[in-house]
Amino acid sequence: MSGNSIGKRLVLTTFGESHGPCIGGVIDGYPAGISIDYNHLQTELSKRRPGQSHLVSQREEEDKVEFLSGIYKNKTLGSPIAFIVKNKDTKPSEYDDLKDIYRPSHSDYTYDMKYGFRDERGGGRASARETVARVVAGALAKQFLLKQNIEIIAFVRSIGKISAKQHFSEIDTKNIEKSPVRCPDPEVSEKMINYIEKMIEEGDSTGGVVECIIKGVDAGLGEPVFDKLHADLGKAMLSINAAKGFDYGRGFDAAKMTGSKHNDPFGYKNNKIITLTNNSGGIQGGISNSMDIFFRVAFKPAPTIKQEQTTVDKKGKIRKFTAQGRHDPCIAVRAVPIVESMAAIIIMDHFLRS
Amino acid sequence: MSGNSIGKRLVLTTFGESHGPCIGGVIDGYPAGISIDYNHLQTELSKRRPGQSHLVSQREEEDKVEFLSGIYKNKTLGSPIAFIVKNKDTKPSEYDDLKDIYRPSHSDYTYDMKYGFRDERGGGRASARETVARVVAGALAKQFLLKQNIEIIAFVRSIGKISAKQHFSEIDTKNIEKSPVRCPDPEVSEKMINYIEKMIEEGDSTGGVVECIIKGVDAGLGEPVFDKLHADLGKAMLSINAAKGFDYGRGFDAAKMTGSKHNDPFGYKNNKIITLTNNSGGIQGGISNSMDIFFRVAFKPAPTIKQEQTTVDKKGKIRKFTAQGRHDPCIAVRAVPIVESMAAIIIMDHFLRS
Amino acid sequence: MSGNSIGKRLVLTTFGESHGPCIGGVIDGYPAGISIDYNHLQTELSKRRPGQSHLVSQREEEDKVEFLSGIYKNKTLGSPIAFIVKNKDTKPSEYDDLKDIYRPSHSDYTYDMKYGFRDERGGGRASARETVARVVAGALAKQFLLKQNIEIIAFVRSIGKISAKQHFSEIDTKNIEKSPVRCPDPEVSEKMINYIEKMIEEGDSTGGVVECIIKGVDAGLGEPVFDKLHADLGKAMLSINAAKGFDYGRGFDAAKMTGSKHNDPFGYKNNKIITLTNNSGGIQGGISNSMDIFFRVAFKPAPTIKQEQTTVDKKGKIRKFTAQGRHDPCIAVRAVPIVESMAAIIIMDHFLRS
Amino acid sequence: MSGNSIGKRLVLTTFGESHGPCIGGVIDGYPAGISIDYNHLQTELSKRRPGQSHLVSQREEEDKVEFLSGIYKNKTLGSPIAFIVKNKDTKPSEYDDLKDIYRPSHSDYTYDMKYGFRDERGGGRASARETVARVVAGALAKQFLLKQNIEIIAFVRSIGKISAKQHFSEIDTKNIEKSPVRCPDPEVSEKMINYIEKMIEEGDSTGGVVECIIKGVDAGLGEPVFDKLHADLGKAMLSINAAKGFDYGRGFDAAKMTGSKHNDPFGYKNNKIITLTNNSGGIQGGISNSMDIFFRVAFKPAPTIKQEQTTVDKKGKIRKFTAQGRHDPCIAVRAVPIVESMAAIIIMDHFLRS
Repeated sequence: MSGNSIGKRLVLTTFGESHGPCIGGVIDGYPAGISIDYNHLQTELSKRRPGQSHLVSQREEEDKVEFLSGIYKNKTLGSPIAFIVKNKDTKPSEYDDLKDIYRPSHSDYTYDMKYGFRDERGGGRASARETVARVVAGALAKQFLLKQNIEIIAFVRSIGKISAKQHFSEIDTKNIEKSPVRCPDPEVSEKMINYIEKMIEEGDSTGGVVECIIKGVDAGLGEPVFDKLHADLGKAMLSINAAKGFDYGRGFDAAKMTGSKHNDPFGYKNNKIITLTNNSGGIQGGISNSMDIFFRVAFKPAPTIKQEQTTVDKKGKIRKFTAQGRHDPCIAVRAVPIVESMAAIIIMDHFLRS
Repeated sequence: MSGNSIGKRLVLTTFGESHGPCIGGVIDGYPAGISIDYNHLQTELSKRRPGQSHLVSQREEEDKVEFLSGIYKNKTLGSPIAFIVKNKDTKPSEYDDLKDIYRPSHSDYTYDMKYGFRDERGGGRASARETVARVVAGALAKQFLLKQNIEIIAFVRSIGKISAKQHFSEIDTKNIEKSPVRCPDPEVSEKMINYIEKMIEEGDSTGGVVECIIKGVDAGLGEPVFDKLHADLGKAMLSINAAKGFDYGRGFDAAKMTGSKHNDPFGYKNNKIITLTNNSGGIQGGISNSMDIFFRVAFKPAPTIKQEQTTVDKKGKIRKFTAQGRHDPCIAVRAVPIVESMAAIIIMDHFLRS
Repeated sequence: MSGNSIGKRLVLTTFGESHGPCIGGVIDGYPAGISIDYNHLQTELSKRRPGQSHLVSQREEEDKVEFLSGIYKNKTLGSPIAFIVKNKDTKPSEYDDLKDIYRPSHSDYTYDMKYGFRDERGGGRASARETVARVVAGALAKQFLLKQNIEIIAFVRSIGKISAKQHFSEIDTKNIEKSPVRCPDPEVSEKMINYIEKMIEEGDSTGGVVECIIKGVDAGLGEPVFDKLHADLGKAMLSINAAKGFDYGRGFDAAKMTGSKHNDPFGYKNNKIITLTNNSGGIQGGISNSMDIFFRVAFKPAPTIKQEQTTVDKKGKIRKFTAQGRHDPCIAVRAVPIVESMAAIIIMDHFLRS
Repeated sequence: MSGNSIGKRLVLTTFGESHGPCIGGVIDGYPAGISIDYNHLQTELSKRRPGQSHLVSQREEEDKVEFLSGIYKNKTLGSPIAFIVKNKDTKPSEYDDLKDIYRPSHSDYTYDMKYGFRDERGGGRASARETVARVVAGALAKQFLLKQNIEIIAFVRSIGKISAKQHFSEIDTKNIEKSPVRCPDPEVSEKMINYIEKMIEEGDSTGGVVECIIKGVDAGLGEPVFDKLHADLGKAMLSINAAKGFDYGRGFDAAKMTGSKHNDPFGYKNNKIITLTNNSGGIQGGISNSMDIFFRVAFKPAPTIKQEQTTVDKKGKIRKFTAQGRHDPCIAVRAVPIVESMAAIIIMDHFLRS
């Protein structure tokens, strides 16, 4: 009811405020007897972590997971897996001068309207810091899915107006983490880096698009009529901070196409029914058809910029405001592991439901 | 768990197959003592109904609602509101030659994989016929919201590559229903009609984009962190047949923008805090900010076309196939009332949750 | 949220008021491909039906089920199974003189307080008529469970102070339906009949206890820590009209025992771990242990009696009142099939969850 | 789905194993802006704590709550309240000789059957240690309810065959905590103490009954038809370790009564509609009627006794077994604060739902 949980069979509940003692979560419904790979988990977390390059926020977070329950001798018990990640680098004083004003395109104003007050220490629950819990849960989901030969890969498709052109099937996934902006096309990656550096210089920020591919899902995952696989993926993606849009398969481009071009003819290969094209994005009628699932998520430019902006205080008085502190010039870069994590949680949930 | 329900406080469950006796639904959580306007309800249904013009499917459906419970002397009782809409024009024999083959980009194959068999009478639950139940529930939700001065208006933004250019605030909403393609720009509407007629002639279909505006929502609706208002709207929209994408505010365009351009400065007008621009689409941090909420939904071209296509039968043998029967050349046109209905259900659910 | 649904994997939602057009339900989560036995279903319904003997309410209800969805050619489709049972014998005029007063120990007053008004045509949702939907769903659940060799048998253990003494393992279940009061001990049954006839004569009613046994459940059903198998059974039983108590295994008697007497020693028989006694009632730590599950449900005497009673009207004015109409002198008798039905729904839900 | 959560609007999820690092919980849906009284909270916890007298388990647990989220400057934020209570006195080695055998009437066998293995360190999730999380949540719920003038009081009604005779309205509630067995009748309390001491001496245990009263609930709480207030209370009580039965109002005794004796006549007093008797237990048709709500919970004797018992090992071989360690001779005594806590959680949930 209060929106802090997602999933039906695999349920992730997150808790914690950006400037409280920790961010944490409870994963309920994770099967018993699964071995946990802690190295993989920390690698995943380090992808989300600020400070990994000069192109992302320089906020320092150690991001070490402590498990509180549900795992014994490295194996899951079938009971709820609770975990926390301590908040190390909280400097609430940074936020002192924000107490009375509403930062433009942040949630300061809307939270105030909803709760009657707000946690003046920072974003509270609205902070992207909350997503650290999603990445922990996502890493465990990925580990489970990998045993089912399901693999999830996300990368940056575009930043501002700079866009990688290759089809996802042509990219070299090993290039993703080699690029500090997580774009697998080295040439385009270079341009993106330059653009972000320009943004930093100008005290501005830029939007971007993350693309995600899910390989190895058998036909039959997803539920009619409301819990269609892409509808649950869409909700999960749109719940990520700063997400503004979601489409799958040919997505918004499909709206410009004709049926004769968009339809995927069936074929037969290696004793298996396949589609000869994959405009559908691996999902038909809300249910997976065994082809690659792929989708895109649009992220807005970070609202925190170092340029002076016009805003109001609680009484509606016009105020000038220039942000301080450490923030991301391009959210999409650090969103990549979060997109993968949310995808893993949804796919595992549907896997357990089917 | 089986995906036939949506909402947390206002819960809609739908039932019925396209070629069974009826489509129906149960609305649980609708408050007691609300008067029902049956005329409005039937008007809403007639917008979704096939056969309303030569530009949509000619399948005949009377679409008359029968209420089974929850209403007495035209007032809601607070108990579940169950209703059915009988299926009148079912000709399962039309589907006889489809028994063994999988229609391209339909759900025939995926349902077969999920359930081990499928309702060979037609789409079953996957048929867009199911959305009649959504429109009934949506009409009741709209009636409730109107008492709260919340209004929901959708229209066709684009068909194929033809697109209305005006900002939604400039359109004359009365023009929507005057246009057989529900595009409020008369000139563009004419072009769209011509294009759809061309599609019909060629036995083809076209995609389109529906835009929706929600006016009158106070600040404070929506829940952190997973049930963000736009995330729930997104899931609801993506659960509509043929939907391929959803974005809100500046959406995918925001990914190309800088923060300094995208941020909405706050202002103060008529004793109320407002934003001077509305790139955010009326939602910040997942919670409404009292500005107009607006979003777009992309629909693919209908998969049923009258051109010959390549497909396979259950054994994987290649087969040629040409669709018969009565189908929509452009799903987006009839999707307009469904988009409005799903929006109404989600907004009412969050209204009751807050 | 509004309490009209039960179950997590198998979800039953009921709708309909006692004096509206019908009572109905939607069963979501019932697996695909199961054959439905309509004769069994109607037999189950006839056990609940009023008018089956002079010892129960003489209200006439035909109680014929109509399925609206989810079944095709006698097989379940995996989609929601919606059904209705029409209300035939509604005489709302019988209730005319009840409009302004609150019947003692009925829900008239509490519904009025909750909703601000009430359906003056009779009990509305509070009427035991609603349980007809539970019996339909229960019959389908029983049919599913029987394929898993799970059998559910309930009977009347006591009426007033008259009680059958045999242990459930010693009773001849064939005697249950032979007895018009559903007590398998013929001698005790005779005494119960006489007592109920006395109640009818005196215009009074009597309470009773129903006992239920579930045979064939393998070890491992039930969930820690809140959804213990007996906790879900208890809630389901307590949700039946007029239920006042639930206990399982040795139940309230266990509170008088010592651990050395109550503990069930383990044994080994036919290559299977068993318990040598079954004080636990087939459930340990909330999870089935493969022994027979058994429990008891206490029902209060029907509140409708033909003796004059003191009550108040809506304004609090003292009024005298004598009930008219057709009612049950002993609710427990007709509760037997309802107890079995709710047990079947809960066991099937947990079966599908595990 | 996995049974670790309870409530719909106020949702408590618990996590943690008895011999893991901690027991904890997440409370979602607790309103914003409520001040927390930590002293009251610790007092509640100390009532549940072992070692409080020689009549209960001597296991040492400090039971200090640490809040991880949801509270800032002693006020709730409206976000999930996560908390842990560290496990201090875990001596898993005590359980070494239990690894291969199943303790009679414990959950060792059923957990093994469910999960395929079990946490050999002790009861894991099945341990009553889990209830510490319920008491934390219950204390916060009580603090909320007290502001609504709702008070919840439980006490020991009987131990073995020794029973307090007074009606709950006649007892002096201040006597409850004065009695080491929580029985407010000093004379009966003395007899109970002697009986428990006898049990300790004999290495045996005893069952008992806890009674609970809820005062100050207005008319209108509870939901038809499945989430009746007493049905939700019943489930919550039956989910407590060792609970075997639940009844409310006259409960099982009502089954022996006639309607003319059991019905509660309405009256009018102080401008308020009341009932002149309260056999109904404050609930009619599943909805509160503003009279005191009261119910009883039966607890079995603790299965751990110091007498030799017969059991089997994992292979079904018969084994003799005598329990070691620190355990409760009468669970009912320490169950009192747990019963109150679960009652508070359910009442607050329904309060927020209404």
